[in-house]
Amino acid sequence: MADTGSRRRGDRAGYVDDVGSVDKGGPFAVEEEEESVEKIFAAQEVPSWKGQLTFRAFAVSLMLSIAFTFIVMKLNLTTGIIPSLNVAAGLLGFFLIKTWTAVFAKLGIFPFTRQENTVIQTCVVAASGIAFSGGFGSYLFGMSERVASQSNTSDAKDFKNPSLSWMIGFLFLVSFVGLLSVVPLRKIMIVDFKLTYPSGTATAYLINSFHTPQGAKLAKKQVRVLGKYFSFSFLWAFFKWFFAASDGCGFENFPSLGLQAFANRFYFDFSATYVGVGMICPYIINVSVLVGGILSWGVMWPLIGKKKGIWYPDGSDDMHRLQGYKVFISIAMILGDGLYNFIKVLSITIVALYKQIRSKDSVLPVASDASPESAAQNFDDQRRTHVFLKDQIPTWFAISGYVAIAAVSTGTLPQIFPQLKWYYVLVVYVMAPPLAFCNAYGCGLTDWSLASTYGKLAIFIVGAWAGQGHGGVLAGLAACGVMMNIVSTASDLTQDFKTGYLTLASPRAMFVSQAIGTAMGCVISPCVFWVFYNAFDNLGSPDSEYPAPYAALYRSIARLGVEGFSSLPSHCLTLCYIFFAAAIVINGIRDLVGKKWARFIPIPMAMAIPFYIGSYFAIDMCVGSLILFVWTKTNKAKAEAFAPAVASGMICGEGIWSLPSSVLALAKISPPICMKFLSSAVNQKVDTFLAG
Amino acid sequence: MADTGSRRRGDRAGYVDDVGSVDKGGPFAVEEEEESVEKIFAAQEVPSWKGQLTFRAFAVSLMLSIAFTFIVMKLNLTTGIIPSLNVAAGLLGFFLIKTWTAVFAKLGIFPFTRQENTVIQTCVVAASGIAFSGGFGSYLFGMSERVASQSNTSDAKDFKNPSLSWMIGFLFLVSFVGLLSVVPLRKIMIVDFKLTYPSGTATAYLINSFHTPQGAKLAKKQVRVLGKYFSFSFLWAFFKWFFAASDGCGFENFPSLGLQAFANRFYFDFSATYVGVGMICPYIINVSVLVGGILSWGVMWPLIGKKKGIWYPDGSDDMHRLQGYKVFISIAMILGDGLYNFIKVLSITIVALYKQIRSKDSVLPVASDASPESAAQNFDDQRRTHVFLKDQIPTWFAISGYVAIAAVSTGTLPQIFPQLKWYYVLVVYVMAPPLAFCNAYGCGLTDWSLASTYGKLAIFIVGAWAGQGHGGVLAGLAACGVMMNIVSTASDLTQDFKTGYLTLASPRAMFVSQAIGTAMGCVISPCVFWVFYNAFDNLGSPDSEYPAPYAALYRSIARLGVEGFSSLPSHCLTLCYIFFAAAIVINGIRDLVGKKWARFIPIPMAMAIPFYIGSYFAIDMCVGSLILFVWTKTNKAKAEAFAPAVASGMICGEGIWSLPSSVLALAKISPPICMKFLSSAVNQKVDTFLAG
Repeated sequence: MADTGSRRRGDRAGYVDDVGSVDKGGPFAVEEEEESVEKIFAAQEVPSWKGQLTFRAFAVSLMLSIAFTFIVMKLNLTTGIIPSLNVAAGLLGFFLIKTWTAVFAKLGIFPFTRQENTVIQTCVVAASGIAFSGGFGSYLFGMSERVASQSNTSDAKDFKNPSLSWMIGFLFLVSFVGLLSVVPLRKIMIVDFKLTYPSGTATAYLINSFHTPQGAKLAKKQVRVLGKYFSFSFLWAFFKWFFAASDGCGFENFPSLGLQAFANRFYFDFSATYVGVGMICPYIINVSVLVGGILSWGVMWPLIGKKKGIWYPDGSDDMHRLQGYKVFISIAMILGDGLYNFIKVLSITIVALYKQIRSKDSVLPVASDASPESAAQNFDDQRRTHVFLKDQIPTWFAISGYVAIAAVSTGTLPQIFPQLKWYYVLVVYVMAPPLAFCNAYGCGLTDWSLASTYGKLAIFIVGAWAGQGHGGVLAGLAACGVMMNIVSTASDLTQDFKTGYLTLASPRAMFVSQAIGTAMGCVISPCVFWVFYNAFDNLGSPDSEYPAPYAALYRSIARLGVEGFSSLPSHCLTLCYIFFAAAIVINGIRDLVGKKWARFIPIPMAMAIPFYIGSYFAIDMCVGSLILFVWTKTNKAKAEAFAPAVASGMICGEGIWSLPSSVLALAKISPPICMKFLSSAVNQKVDTFLAG
Repeated sequence: MADTGSRRRGDRAGYVDDVGSVDKGGPFAVEEEEESVEKIFAAQEVPSWKGQLTFRAFAVSLMLSIAFTFIVMKLNLTTGIIPSLNVAAGLLGFFLIKTWTAVFAKLGIFPFTRQENTVIQTCVVAASGIAFSGGFGSYLFGMSERVASQSNTSDAKDFKNPSLSWMIGFLFLVSFVGLLSVVPLRKIMIVDFKLTYPSGTATAYLINSFHTPQGAKLAKKQVRVLGKYFSFSFLWAFFKWFFAASDGCGFENFPSLGLQAFANRFYFDFSATYVGVGMICPYIINVSVLVGGILSWGVMWPLIGKKKGIWYPDGSDDMHRLQGYKVFISIAMILGDGLYNFIKVLSITIVALYKQIRSKDSVLPVASDASPESAAQNFDDQRRTHVFLKDQIPTWFAISGYVAIAAVSTGTLPQIFPQLKWYYVLVVYVMAPPLAFCNAYGCGLTDWSLASTYGKLAIFIVGAWAGQGHGGVLAGLAACGVMMNIVSTASDLTQDFKTGYLTLASPRAMFVSQAIGTAMGCVISPCVFWVFYNAFDNLGSPDSEYPAPYAALYRSIARLGVEGFSSLPSHCLTLCYIFFAAAIVINGIRDLVGKKWARFIPIPMAMAIPFYIGSYFAIDMCVGSLILFVWTKTNKAKAEAFAPAVASGMICGEGIWSLPSSVLALAKISPPICMKFLSSAVNQKVDTFLAG
């Protein structure tokens, strides 16, 4: 979750401290019930797979998808930290359908089932997932001239500006193959291997609990709380808007900890979004981000800044100066963390697979030390397996679909990106299915999707292969897009199959829902991005309200792959090595000391984000943490039941505000007032200027 | 309470809608218990009067007096609206003594009685009362050069600047006679007439309830809530300080409703104090203030402003221009309201006295229609009367004291104010005792002290008598001070006698406590004012943070008395007549339509304040009202128990912050940041200026 590409699905649980452990959704896990869930639902008939795919479900999904795409896009372009919106999607889906049935009650409408709820959840997550895996905050925007021009290196002329047409085309080409690549393996992973998929399981429990009578009551209360905080957050964002007449104005620039701290990007910026994000993320993530911020902006950058003229030439800041240290040291940490976890997850995957195949046992090794299954669980399993295997998706369909799309893509993608030769694309498509399987399998074990790490791998391989002269930077970024999309949607769909398995939703319905959601996302996301791109001229510049930090980071990774380390300022490489090693060592220590102590050790990947953009959002998130902490201390039950609703409300409210806010910006309506913060001395000068 | 002088004591109840009704402390009335209070306390021995006057009581009183003086002074100098701090005084006194006994428990300390609590409450109210009746926000500061220079009239050279020495001397001369003037009549008013004294009664119930076991528990909870909001409010004020580097900076100038509204002084200024004040004041007061603000700054001043150059000459605003309309129209309303109520209360007093004397009946006419007294009440009355009559204060002591002080004052006051001839002083001292009795009697009936109205009477009489050539303005203001102090302390002490009667505190102890409190106040108040006066250079200027609105109003009243209406701008007199009449008519309607409808009719005196200073504080107060309203709707019991604590905490916290804030200002430490609000256009200019 700390890295835009890495754990889309696992982000609710945040970092998983201990691979192989079963974490059912982090701080807000729904307690696993002892009695048989399916016995409670036994009287309820399961609709046919076509019956699960209702018109109203997709109407509601479309609404939610648009809303969530705005939210995810805003987060993409601000810090790249995206918390799980599954809870909000599940809740709001439930609420909207309940409203729908209430409104159309006279039409003799058929009842709202948990399968339908799962279909909505799947569709919304698939659609808003594209906002993320489409790379609008990372590889795709990293190709643009705006980001390219930030560094005065030789590749600055190597850009491809966003345009609605090619973005939609590109997404349609690459977003569906991921679905097809794992379809044939779903039985193995869900039924035979019994993989955990913590987030998928948690979502299923949530949906199951909503559809029991008491659950509906709690859900309604949660929806009310969510609505309250949604309104508050929306109105607050609206209020804040009035005071942000231009750059440097408004609450986003409130030097709440003093001007000195503000200059080093330490301030509380009154953002309801990140307070909400802080409430959803585990404490250690928030603390890690803050530690990273203090280390970088509080200690390192001021120290390196003193070497101006010695370590790097004087002049306005760019990639060859202080900016270079910021970007490459954070890349080093992200890569170190990524590498460590890649090897860890891969080795666990291989070992587990090996054991599985050798013993021909259907019980998963990591789950084998669990207590013997009770009769209730046996009943549930039988019923779920029965439903899961009833509706098949033919393997020939999946394979032929994959081959067809791959063939079309191989022919078409080089048309979009001339730098991306057809054989690069072919190689990626050949490599993708095993990597997709690895990712889906690893995610099932650890709740951790490594999509962005696979994406970075593609950047390096294709970038180096293409070389500098032939637009390697762009080829690398495009290849990253192809790879990330396949790998990411593969783990997403498998996760959804697990949710479907636990809610008796048909796999065929899941597949169709995800396909429709993906199609929605392929249109909605570029459009929403397009709105932001046109509304905010300074999108992507490091000091703006929308710095899109990962766009610059991804481009720098591509440049590193193509050019080598030659362009870095003095001592930067040494520092990069140190931080790369530190990331690996810290991760190693976290795994060695065990869960008890690991929760006090910060996570390198989370630490790396403020290195680049500053720690204002870390302070927001810590405020969120603090609120949750105090709330939990005063009333644990209430905090557990309502904190996710409060947090989701706060995130969604301000997120939705970005819709009218971008419309206002497009209409060239700027806020009427500038709330400016001046030092006492500057203020006197300004007062004299204004008076005279 | 809306007028600095008028209802110091009655302010908790706010305006009393219906003369003769028994309103036990407005929205936070303590329910009158059905069972005998004194039977509950029967086992508790009443200490001797000397035993009630403990050292710790006065130590605690001193601390609270200093704190409360800062709060009252701040309120004096901002809007002049001062809510009752009796609840806070009672609560904090209780809490501090409890802490005291806990700390010194090992010294075998004697127990904390309700009599001691009453002594503290009386002492603190007496001391902080001087902050108010000393006229630092009204007549006394109105004498200063700063206020005088605001109008370019012939009296502008007629000023006397504050100085620590003469202020303390003046207060010692005039503050004690009031106490002596009503001492001989206390038995008649408390025991024979059984006057109600709503505020005194409410305070007594509060103290009685604290000292029952359940009461102590609730009190502790209330203290915790008060402490929480106190800290919040203090920290918030501290935070706000950092952003107010100079005039026009900071949260005090936050155009929260837009720049246009801000220009007309409509904005929410994030003041915890006035949100708290709004929570304590009855809804109708808050609404009246808002209506007044909308009428004046929203409608009238913009309209009159358009007549610039026609109705009044162009040029910078002063008393001959728009400022004149603001000041004199609000004076007209205040005088109209004052006159109406003066006549009303006086006639009720006379009628009641007449009936009382004729029937020789000890039951008060207005109370005679109450239900027959129960046995419990009879027991209480007997016990209370017994205790009340035990400790006597000799009448010869009171009379000879009064004569002695009057003689000294007559000789000394002309030394301080040469314009105030000795015969003016003598006349005031001769007139004072009957007026003091009237005020104490009226206050007992209606909870409404008319001290400021008597003060304005003195301004007119002495001012006109002295005449313009002989410094009539200053003579009038000085006479106002003498009169107000006598009349105000008289009603305060009688109110305290009632509290003492109901808590079995000795009248002698009450008298000593009030005398000590008054002495404290005579030293503390001038010192605190001196701190404000030296710390804030712009104290008293209408646009500053401390406009001290009543100082200018009182001076204008004095000028009006001396000069007549000649100096007013065109049509101002006509408008004054209209508003004077309107104030009387509205009051008449309020009395005619009965309580049910009266609560929807705004109160002229409350409407008059924003006429002069704008409605920002009205918006704060309405926010407070709104919070209380919503709270009461959601949880009535909790709101009733804790709203006064929340409000007191918010008022006290920000009030106490004015202590360090003035120290910082005295030390010439100005805040580091200016939070400035610029229109979009001006901001562009400033940005260009700062960049170039």
